[in-house]
Amino acid sequence: MKTDARLHEADLIAWLARTLPARDESVLVGIGDDAAVVEASGGGRLILTNDCLIDGIHFRLGETSPRLIGRKAVMRAVSDIAAMAGRPRWILAALCLPRGVDGQTVKALCLGMRAACRTLGVAWVGGDLSRTSGPLAAVVTVIGEVLAPGAVRRAGAAPGDAVCVTGRLGGSILGRQFRFRPRLAEAQRLARRFRPHAMTDLSDGLSTDARHLADAGGVRLVLHERAIPVSAAARRLGRLDGRPALAHALNDGEDYELLFTLAPRDAARAAAEGLCGTAVTVIGCVEEGRGVVIASPDGRRRELAPEGYEHVF
Amino acid sequence: MKTDARLHEADLIAWLARTLPARDESVLVGIGDDAAVVEASGGGRLILTNDCLIDGIHFRLGETSPRLIGRKAVMRAVSDIAAMAGRPRWILAALCLPRGVDGQTVKALCLGMRAACRTLGVAWVGGDLSRTSGPLAAVVTVIGEVLAPGAVRRAGAAPGDAVCVTGRLGGSILGRQFRFRPRLAEAQRLARRFRPHAMTDLSDGLSTDARHLADAGGVRLVLHERAIPVSAAARRLGRLDGRPALAHALNDGEDYELLFTLAPRDAARAAAEGLCGTAVTVIGCVEEGRGVVIASPDGRRRELAPEGYEHVF
Repeated sequence: MKTDARLHEADLIAWLARTLPARDESVLVGIGDDAAVVEASGGGRLILTNDCLIDGIHFRLGETSPRLIGRKAVMRAVSDIAAMAGRPRWILAALCLPRGVDGQTVKALCLGMRAACRTLGVAWVGGDLSRTSGPLAAVVTVIGEVLAPGAVRRAGAAPGDAVCVTGRLGGSILGRQFRFRPRLAEAQRLARRFRPHAMTDLSDGLSTDARHLADAGGVRLVLHERAIPVSAAARRLGRLDGRPALAHALNDGEDYELLFTLAPRDAARAAAEGLCGTAVTVIGCVEEGRGVVIASPDGRRRELAPEGYEHVF
Repeated sequence: MKTDARLHEADLIAWLARTLPARDESVLVGIGDDAAVVEASGGGRLILTNDCLIDGIHFRLGETSPRLIGRKAVMRAVSDIAAMAGRPRWILAALCLPRGVDGQTVKALCLGMRAACRTLGVAWVGGDLSRTSGPLAAVVTVIGEVLAPGAVRRAGAAPGDAVCVTGRLGGSILGRQFRFRPRLAEAQRLARRFRPHAMTDLSDGLSTDARHLADAGGVRLVLHERAIPVSAAARRLGRLDGRPALAHALNDGEDYELLFTLAPRDAARAAAEGLCGTAVTVIGCVEEGRGVVIASPDGRRRELAPEGYEHVF
């Protein structure tokens, strides 16, 4: 229960998911997953997603180069396609530009987007330009395609599964937030080789994104404190701000790593092999129940509150 | 040549169209048309477009009901699909919400969007929510499909063609701007029956949108002043503000009618038959040359400056 009267992102999404039943056979996955999956007339399956990046909320013009901002706008939208093990194909970009915006800034932003598209093999095919009385904002829409063996959803985690992540977590604000690449190749390799039961990307923070998998699957995720792969940046940030590095790994967000569940035997193999050179770590298991708990080395468990990012309006 | 140092929408679009060559065989129509057309792996062809609607720029919260605003956000984005004679299938909506926004306002906006989707047979499948320090903004992306006999482009007007419009023009601000329906059925009927050579929707205003067709086709459009179908709203608005009703019909924008060119014989038949009960008027012809001219009843011609809407930053 929320203790204030303000509008919370999760509540609004839940309301939308209740209120907008698609009742359309072409919609295979609707609101509430990392991306939507639809079936086109010819039978091809598309993955659809978009993402806002707003000055003052997601970045600050003047603190970060517009090229990096443009790069990030594309990369983070594409991460939602990775989260379903899809292939990004095309983007549209809606740019809302404040009066008096510097043309060089806008062009640098666009060149950063273009570079990201080229890196990813995605074509920037259109969009919209508009004036705004507010801050500069970019909304990137990605249209992707489902690859065999199919889109991996948030729902599907089953009791007995192992919970895994790619890479190391936390401290993204020290640089990774603008430098990451979405785990496309890793997700595709994972899907083909191990058929993950459920997957999402770590954008809001492990404590929040793990809850998304738990809620979608109607299960409990148990994370082992000692197993969480804490990044060097999380440790560095912890030294700077005095918070535990583990808290950064659990809650910082913007890792853009993959969180997924596998049969235990497959998880052991994935951890041994890695994915396209990226480390895979088994960080916990799935149980019957609800929510997310974290277990300390002595076996004590506590509920892991979702302290990752949520928009409150 | 622009006489000020500010960034103009048309210049930025031209720069993008030069700078972002797709070099991707899947891209059949890229930046610079009403929507992009791409070919999916299975061979199906998709039409992709998006549109920003921003408080203070495109509407004013407090002056217009949020339901109508939501309705408009969907209808105007879908109008770009009509402009290419496509079929809209799915939408994504990115909502940027200011701090303290009223939950009922947001829900009413969403219900207006939902109603529009249902009217059009489109499924709202996802999107993104974000906080903003600026005004409320909605970015609607539409993913549509190309129908036989194919997408109609802005390019293709040929000397000798007749220039036609659906409906009557001008004065949209008196009500039509929030009440229109995109001319989907009309465009599809037109494409199947008469194979238009070039088409766009009238969103910026006839004087500006006609120039888009002229520029895309490398031709001149000659419009006959007397033939322009001036709406009752344009006449009413002219009585209110003292400007000629014709000026409203030429420049107001937000008509969301179709502007297209046809072989003259087909144009006569389309005008006689109409399209799905909507009037078609022949308003001019296509010549070799460039730009748009308007001819008065005595045969005198003058260049028609693009006085429709353009964002300047």
